[in-house]
Amino acid sequence: MEKLGLLYEGKAKRIYATNDEGIVWVEYKDSATAFNGEKKATITGKGRLNNTISCLLFEMLHEKGIDTHLVERISDIEQLVKKVAIIPLEVVVRNVAAGSLSKRLGLEEGSPLASPIIELYYKNDELGDPLINEDHIKLLHLASMLQVNEMKQKAQEINTVLTSFFDEKNVRLIDFKLEFGITTDGTVLLADEISPDTCRLWDKETNEKLDKDVFRRGLGSLTEAYEQILERLGGSSCTK
Amino acid sequence: MEKLGLLYEGKAKRIYATNDEGIVWVEYKDSATAFNGEKKATITGKGRLNNTISCLLFEMLHEKGIDTHLVERISDIEQLVKKVAIIPLEVVVRNVAAGSLSKRLGLEEGSPLASPIIELYYKNDELGDPLINEDHIKLLHLASMLQVNEMKQKAQEINTVLTSFFDEKNVRLIDFKLEFGITTDGTVLLADEISPDTCRLWDKETNEKLDKDVFRRGLGSLTEAYEQILERLGGSSCTK
Repeated sequence: MEKLGLLYEGKAKRIYATNDEGIVWVEYKDSATAFNGEKKATITGKGRLNNTISCLLFEMLHEKGIDTHLVERISDIEQLVKKVAIIPLEVVVRNVAAGSLSKRLGLEEGSPLASPIIELYYKNDELGDPLINEDHIKLLHLASMLQVNEMKQKAQEINTVLTSFFDEKNVRLIDFKLEFGITTDGTVLLADEISPDTCRLWDKETNEKLDKDVFRRGLGSLTEAYEQILERLGGSSCTK
Repeated sequence: MEKLGLLYEGKAKRIYATNDEGIVWVEYKDSATAFNGEKKATITGKGRLNNTISCLLFEMLHEKGIDTHLVERISDIEQLVKKVAIIPLEVVVRNVAAGSLSKRLGLEEGSPLASPIIELYYKNDELGDPLINEDHIKLLHLASMLQVNEMKQKAQEINTVLTSFFDEKNVRLIDFKLEFGITTDGTVLLADEISPDTCRLWDKETNEKLDKDVFRRGLGSLTEAYEQILERLGGSSCTK
C-alpha cells in the first residue's frame, strides 16, 4: 500500500490517500485539544496510544459482529481504514451523567442513568458542535432519517458490547462519542476512533478518570491514564 | 367567580385559585424580562396587551377546532383558564431562522426554512431553558412519548392556523413558543399564552419586528409594537 497526498488534517489525525481508491491512511497525532481547540498541547505518545486502543476496540467490535471502517493497523501511529463520507454528526451515548449532560439537565456528575441516552451533535467546530434534533438534521440535510435511526440502533448495540467489555477490565464506560461514514455502496459504517479521547472511562473501584478529562481538567498525566487503559485492554495485542 | 389565594407568580403572570376547583384566575403583569431574567423592566400596558392578544388568538384557535385552556377574559389584564398541570416543556415552532436557531446552526436571521421545525426546551430557569431531546425527556420523566407526539402534532396544526391568520393581517409568523398542560382527565391542552412575548412577528412588507425582540434588542417602544399587533388582529374585539 502506498501513502499518497494529504486529504484532511483534523485536530487529532491526518488522513492521506493511498493507491487504493477505497482505502485511506490515517496518522494519529500527538496533539491534545479541548474546549473546541481553546486548550492545546503536544503529548508525546498520545498518537500511539489512541491508534492502538482504537484498533483493539474496533477489532473486538468486529468479532462481535459490528462492522467498522478499520482495515488494519500498520504502525504505532498509523492505520488503514475504508474510505467513507463522514456523516457530520456526533452520536453520543451516555450511561452515567457527566460533562455537558450534567450541566444541561442539572444532574450530579456520576449519577447513573436509568437507561442509556443518545444525543446527536452537529459536527461543526465554528458552531462549537451544538446539540441538535432530527428536525435540524432534516433542515441541514445532514443525514436521512433512515440513516439517523440506523446510527442510533448501532450506537445502542455498540454500547452494550463496549460496556460489558470495559466492565470485565474494571472500567466503567460513562459515555462516548461515535462517528459514522457512508461507504460507496451506501452502507452506514462505524468510523473515526473509539479511545480515551472519545470516551469517559472511570476506574470501577475508585472512579479515577482514565480519559481526556485528565487533560481537560488538568488532573494529572494523560499518557499514564491512557497507558492504564491500554494495559487493561491487553496491551499491544492489536494486529501488528 | 371568586378570586382566592395566589398559587404561583411567574415573570409575566400571577395565577390565583378560584372557588371553582377546575378554574384558575390569571393576572398579566406589566413586567418585561429577557435573557432568563437578566434584562428587566416595568412597561405600563404590557399586561393588557398580552392578555387581550392571547385571548383573541386562543378564541380564534378554538373556532378552528383547537382546544385551549381559555375560559374567558374578565378584565383588561385578567382571564379565567382551566386548571391544568403544566408540562415543563417549551414547544418551539419555527418557520424562518431567527434568534437561537440562527446561532445554533449558523443560519442568517430571516432565512425561510424549507419546512417548519419543532424544538423542545426544558422549562427550567435555573438551567436557562436548555434544548433537549426525547431521551432527555424520558430520563427526567417530563412527559410520556405519547404526550410529546401529541404536543408536536398540535404544534404543527397551530402553526398552520396561526401562520395563515397572521398572514392575512400582513404579519409574518417567524417562530413561537407553546406550553401545554394536562387536565384532570389526562387530556393534553394548549395553555399559557400566545402573544408578542412568545412569538416573533415581523411586518410582511418591511420585516419590522413587532414582538419582544423590540425589548430584547432595544429597538424602540415595546407597547407601540404590541399595539400594532393588537390593532391588526382587530383591536379589543375579544370577549369582554
